[in-house]
Amino acid sequence: MKSYTAGIIVIGDEILSGRTQDSNSNYIAKTLLNEGIRLEEVVVIKDDKKTIIDKVINYSSQYSYVFTTGGIGPTHDDITSESISEAFNLEYSINKKAFDILDKYYPKGEFNESRQRMAKMPVGSELILNPMTAAPGFKINNVYVLPGVPEIMQIMFIELIKKLKKGKPKLVITINTNLYESKIAIFLNDIQDKFKNCSIGSYPYFNLVAKTGGVNIVVSSWDMSSIQPVVDDIVNMIKLNGGKSSIV
Amino acid sequence: MKSYTAGIIVIGDEILSGRTQDSNSNYIAKTLLNEGIRLEEVVVIKDDKKTIIDKVINYSSQYSYVFTTGGIGPTHDDITSESISEAFNLEYSINKKAFDILDKYYPKGEFNESRQRMAKMPVGSELILNPMTAAPGFKINNVYVLPGVPEIMQIMFIELIKKLKKGKPKLVITINTNLYESKIAIFLNDIQDKFKNCSIGSYPYFNLVAKTGGVNIVVSSWDMSSIQPVVDDIVNMIKLNGGKSSIV
Repeated sequence: MKSYTAGIIVIGDEILSGRTQDSNSNYIAKTLLNEGIRLEEVVVIKDDKKTIIDKVINYSSQYSYVFTTGGIGPTHDDITSESISEAFNLEYSINKKAFDILDKYYPKGEFNESRQRMAKMPVGSELILNPMTAAPGFKINNVYVLPGVPEIMQIMFIELIKKLKKGKPKLVITINTNLYESKIAIFLNDIQDKFKNCSIGSYPYFNLVAKTGGVNIVVSSWDMSSIQPVVDDIVNMIKLNGGKSSIV
Repeated sequence: MKSYTAGIIVIGDEILSGRTQDSNSNYIAKTLLNEGIRLEEVVVIKDDKKTIIDKVINYSSQYSYVFTTGGIGPTHDDITSESISEAFNLEYSINKKAFDILDKYYPKGEFNESRQRMAKMPVGSELILNPMTAAPGFKINNVYVLPGVPEIMQIMFIELIKKLKKGKPKLVITINTNLYESKIAIFLNDIQDKFKNCSIGSYPYFNLVAKTGGVNIVVSSWDMSSIQPVVDDIVNMIKLNGGKSSIV
């Protein structure tokens, strides 16, 4: 079975300034995992034409799918569509279908010049429809261009993902334990060495208020090879070390 | 005045799988803005040696400061320190000071082999102390290596940032309005054209429950040039368009 990869380009000065916490890439990441598409990298870049062009060219050549978020609104700082046109040497012009959708959406006389900008995109783009605020995203080559507002992005992404070619979803089992990571590290290491087809991640956490801590051990595998023996080994190891474990 | 730039490398499969929402880069971003250091890019990469090495070399040559988070714990999937040693062609070995700190921290007989891994780092590193769980981060060249657990990362970052050379902080004023973005876009465009020294960002939002929306207009400038005339122009423009505005 063919495997599919993805990269996400988050576009926006507001993320780099810390004003906005990006939640789009986490939403896309979770969905991709369930759909069997491997997310390889996420990058957050500024609203700068050259930066967008370079990153789009780079990601487009590396991954099966590229998702961009942000920078497709009507204002002067929305330069994503223009930059992507340039990245692919395509004319940046009014998409007739997008124009009609927006023209119909706005009250008569209010489809002004800045709003018309939202109908401009690389020639040959396929629209990604926006059931919430009309302004569409688009797909050009293997790049899917989405808005930055999470509520709108998510609705559009749910529709979009249905149409993509996918691999088998990754099987993931998480084991929680009250033992500290450094106590079990060496044993996890041995278990990982024994089962090469599974990947074992170890994620410690601390609760400052309750003054407790522990580890989430995430066992995952793309090839659906038997994941159960690994889980059994880990649960048994935790017990031998005097800890508690639960599948979460 | 010299200006300083930064890049953040978030290391961890758990972010790319969507299991964990990265909040470290947002925390660092906000702090850097206040400290006058320009955050240029954030990248999220997997726990893979070659990927870490390539990214560290690339960021280290581009930015004044590089911050990495994640992958410095005691388990097999913690390969950040080893990879960074390799990126700079430095020996990956026990740091005596780090070893002593950890040896003192753990009860007698519990400073085991995996825990000792946390004392290994590129030779010549300077420690970044961890007042919470002892295991230190480190600085090598212009790269600052921090843990992934947010509570620990933040405490260490607060101390670390005090020692960095900084520029003037960016001045930021945010104006909220109830008008829709597409209504004011063309006027914001004109105002931006008039004031080249300020950057004007426009961030629409929607409240699905209250069925309301609006825009946050962020006016910012690094060079402290007069920001007030821009704000006055925007507030006035909103009024002329029948909207409400407030400084937030």
